[in-house]
Amino acid sequence: MPKTDIEIAREAAKKPIQQIGDRLGIPAEHLLPYGHDKAKIGQGFIDGLRDREDGKLILVTAINPTPAGEGKTTTTVGLGDGLNAIGKDAMVCIREASLGPNFGMKGGAAGGGYAQIVPMEDMNLHFTGDFHAITSAHSLLSAMIDNHIYWGNEQEIDIRRIQWRRVVDMNDRALRQVVCSLGGVANGFPREGGFDITVASEVMACLCLADDLSDLERRLGDMIVAYRRDRSPVFCRDMKADGAMTVLLKDAMQPNLVQTLENNPAFVHGGPFANIAHGCNSVIATKTALKLADYVVTEAGFGADLGAEKFFDIKCRKAGLTPSCVVLVATVRAMKMNGGVAKGDLGATDVEAVRKGCANLGRHIENVKSFGVPVVVAINHFSGDAEEEVAAISAYVAEQGSEAIVSRHWAGGGKGAEALATRVAEIADAGVSNFAPLYGDDMPLFEKIETIAKRIYRADEVLADKKIRDQLRLWEDQGYGDLPVCMAKTQYSFSTDPNLRGAPIGHSVPVREVRLSAGAGFIVVVCGEIMTMPGLPRVPSAEAIRLNDAGQIEGLF
Amino acid sequence: MPKTDIEIAREAAKKPIQQIGDRLGIPAEHLLPYGHDKAKIGQGFIDGLRDREDGKLILVTAINPTPAGEGKTTTTVGLGDGLNAIGKDAMVCIREASLGPNFGMKGGAAGGGYAQIVPMEDMNLHFTGDFHAITSAHSLLSAMIDNHIYWGNEQEIDIRRIQWRRVVDMNDRALRQVVCSLGGVANGFPREGGFDITVASEVMACLCLADDLSDLERRLGDMIVAYRRDRSPVFCRDMKADGAMTVLLKDAMQPNLVQTLENNPAFVHGGPFANIAHGCNSVIATKTALKLADYVVTEAGFGADLGAEKFFDIKCRKAGLTPSCVVLVATVRAMKMNGGVAKGDLGATDVEAVRKGCANLGRHIENVKSFGVPVVVAINHFSGDAEEEVAAISAYVAEQGSEAIVSRHWAGGGKGAEALATRVAEIADAGVSNFAPLYGDDMPLFEKIETIAKRIYRADEVLADKKIRDQLRLWEDQGYGDLPVCMAKTQYSFSTDPNLRGAPIGHSVPVREVRLSAGAGFIVVVCGEIMTMPGLPRVPSAEAIRLNDAGQIEGLF
Repeated sequence: MPKTDIEIAREAAKKPIQQIGDRLGIPAEHLLPYGHDKAKIGQGFIDGLRDREDGKLILVTAINPTPAGEGKTTTTVGLGDGLNAIGKDAMVCIREASLGPNFGMKGGAAGGGYAQIVPMEDMNLHFTGDFHAITSAHSLLSAMIDNHIYWGNEQEIDIRRIQWRRVVDMNDRALRQVVCSLGGVANGFPREGGFDITVASEVMACLCLADDLSDLERRLGDMIVAYRRDRSPVFCRDMKADGAMTVLLKDAMQPNLVQTLENNPAFVHGGPFANIAHGCNSVIATKTALKLADYVVTEAGFGADLGAEKFFDIKCRKAGLTPSCVVLVATVRAMKMNGGVAKGDLGATDVEAVRKGCANLGRHIENVKSFGVPVVVAINHFSGDAEEEVAAISAYVAEQGSEAIVSRHWAGGGKGAEALATRVAEIADAGVSNFAPLYGDDMPLFEKIETIAKRIYRADEVLADKKIRDQLRLWEDQGYGDLPVCMAKTQYSFSTDPNLRGAPIGHSVPVREVRLSAGAGFIVVVCGEIMTMPGLPRVPSAEAIRLNDAGQIEGLF
Repeated sequence: MPKTDIEIAREAAKKPIQQIGDRLGIPAEHLLPYGHDKAKIGQGFIDGLRDREDGKLILVTAINPTPAGEGKTTTTVGLGDGLNAIGKDAMVCIREASLGPNFGMKGGAAGGGYAQIVPMEDMNLHFTGDFHAITSAHSLLSAMIDNHIYWGNEQEIDIRRIQWRRVVDMNDRALRQVVCSLGGVANGFPREGGFDITVASEVMACLCLADDLSDLERRLGDMIVAYRRDRSPVFCRDMKADGAMTVLLKDAMQPNLVQTLENNPAFVHGGPFANIAHGCNSVIATKTALKLADYVVTEAGFGADLGAEKFFDIKCRKAGLTPSCVVLVATVRAMKMNGGVAKGDLGATDVEAVRKGCANLGRHIENVKSFGVPVVVAINHFSGDAEEEVAAISAYVAEQGSEAIVSRHWAGGGKGAEALATRVAEIADAGVSNFAPLYGDDMPLFEKIETIAKRIYRADEVLADKKIRDQLRLWEDQGYGDLPVCMAKTQYSFSTDPNLRGAPIGHSVPVREVRLSAGAGFIVVVCGEIMTMPGLPRVPSAEAIRLNDAGQIEGLF
């Protein structure tokens, strides 16, 4: 029987984190250890890197996710190790995992097989406390808003129009909608409220897009927490919470250094929700990695229609990043599901279904190219894949004028990803990327939405009622017109119907709601239902999580 | 102008934490660093200490607190440094600070002047994440209870009788009383609920009283979360949350090592509320320190009537600890306030008021002696104290057959506390302590309450209606009769009236409510109002907290 991810992770020959830091030239005084295998990088060190040249940025993205699994993080880690295996100097940058969801479904956000980042237990629990700090900072502002109202409401907040919801890093559906401040005079003015999960906090998005602590403080101050009766916004700054929140986030702002199973350095930092936020690791981690390595491999949440688009149009645009190459992950199994095969039938070889499902892959290739970035398809190899199925994908990709490379990092680690790494390095080194965001800053907000819907999702139209269009125009009048839009829709389809796999055309994109994240710096466009507070399943994985007699964690992975 | 606490702390010549660990014989693999100046002690190392002899345990407690301040933590740290200064091998054990309250009033729970533990900024912020882990573990159980109800309520929880409140580490009065699970079928069954501050969590009390992780898991499982319609208890174990909660608390259970300004080792670990819990640092920290040092100086929350009594009757009883000496902290200023002087008039010399206030001190001396433990009074010296005022306290204490020693650790560090340290070491070495708890395990619960009220508070009677007496008898029938009681009353007076300073007699102690903490292992007896979720003041200190241009924290201290 093959080893499980956790068995492989436990056998890792981890190096002391200072040794990993030494390789990057980080002196001990700037490497703040958290245990022996995790560390934060001091700002003093980061400041000293300013004049260095940047390495090349490689984005790993994927087809629309299916229950079959694509292995995007696994491929990101495998490619990083593969680049190091062929003698390149490469780093990996991924997101931190949210704690709460691990107690619902089995967790594991650190790759898989022989392409993992360690220590995986810590990464799925408290890690270095960043998300706890974000929860604290968010909670402080929450408390200060109600406290402001309690002591006289000098800012004249309309308690029916408080936008700021509370957060907790736990799947707790009972908190989605509450009435708070009950119990009489001493407890305040009763009002409706609710909780989201921490990764949905705008504080998280601010931290992940901020250049440094002073930029973070400015962004936090810019967040809109409520409106007055005259609809004028009340900012976090008006609550005088931005300074103390920045103090709470002082350490959380610093990138976390860990290592792959092959002892290559990795930054794991930040984790904004991929729906109501942009879904990539922090700008500070990516920028720091680019100063420390010749190649930086990173990933974006969900499929390329959401993840890559937001990576390009929000993160790269705002942080001034230029990706050199995109790796689009596909699997035989996921192609079969896109081709109409049910999950239970994935075991049977079905070349026809693979070919049919490739339409989804083809459109993602086309879309990524439209940003001016060269793309290579990585076929993340599973042991049950038939050779003719793999060949069918490769043939299809070749027909699209691109190339597909089979990668066996899950089973073989960096060595298994050498072919992919070699080709990715060639493309990145060739400097053929001609990146440009999809739309200009000055395009009207509604047109930005239409541009994404038509050019990326291939919809015929965007449906939005007058209220939404008026809201967008109001924000334009208030000076928010130059912000990018952050699309929130199902990740399972190009359309807003999760069951519409493959490469649908002729569909409509209904906009249900728009939200201004003035601190993060984008306008969230909600198309369909989005869940900002998950629930636990009937039998939560927490029921089986425990320490065994050897003190090891069981049931978490 | 004298330097502020934070200025002194910033100038500390801290040693790398591994050097502090080296002095205690902790090898690097068992010392888990958090930055360069904090570390957790691995369980493997602690397990290896079992056969060592214990050092001597010294409790620092105080008169009833007044707004003038007593400096209990400052004296604890000063005495620890003083013992080291006279060539003894001593350690300090104190509680961790709660994060939330720092944003209301100015913080600082790490001592003061030249008797401080560093890094004080971290200790007042996230420290090593213990309280965040406790919040997470508590929140997991909260979510699992409502999730259990949502999916069919197999345990038949009566949703009107859910005892388990949620927690957050923030002063957030708006959450004291809420209605949750609103919004329809997908969000559950609407019910009343509320939030306490994290230090009030029974999870905190369990962690602080547990011997090790398996004892912690048992205690967590024993916690009562709700009752059924037939009043039978539903335990945490019935929710199957205890295993996962223990996993979340795995690191939080390990003591935190830091250092004093004079580079002496200190454990700072755990911080249960001193009202609805017992208010001392963790048993595991105290027991580990006793294996590592000849003298361990620790403290208990509030004045000796609450803090020392619970330290003796709950912590020492349950953990099998035997204190060798008690230091009772008094100040000239606090004696004056107990003698009727208003805070604004403390500057004027007033020997008569000092003498009058000494009645409070006298009763605490008598009480501590009744536990069989020798006591010495430490007069924590303030720069404005007049010599004749100090002399008045000394004379009074001598009249009681005890001795008072002036200690100048605030201004002079360990050197300033040498006289106190010398005397404390002599007493501890003499082995004259004959410690016994105030009451036996088998005394009926109501009699336990009466014993404390009459013998410690000097009340004439305990007032409790039939409902409360019946509840206590029911718990006795259910097998909880051997638990100690945990008194929750005002810390400002021996009585339940906060304005009754000095040494009142003839008063009554009204019991408003009793609560069973079956996991922590005590019965909370609520006398008067207790606050389990503080609020923020009109101008919270958070408004002034920020990072200055040098990256230093301003406004927190």
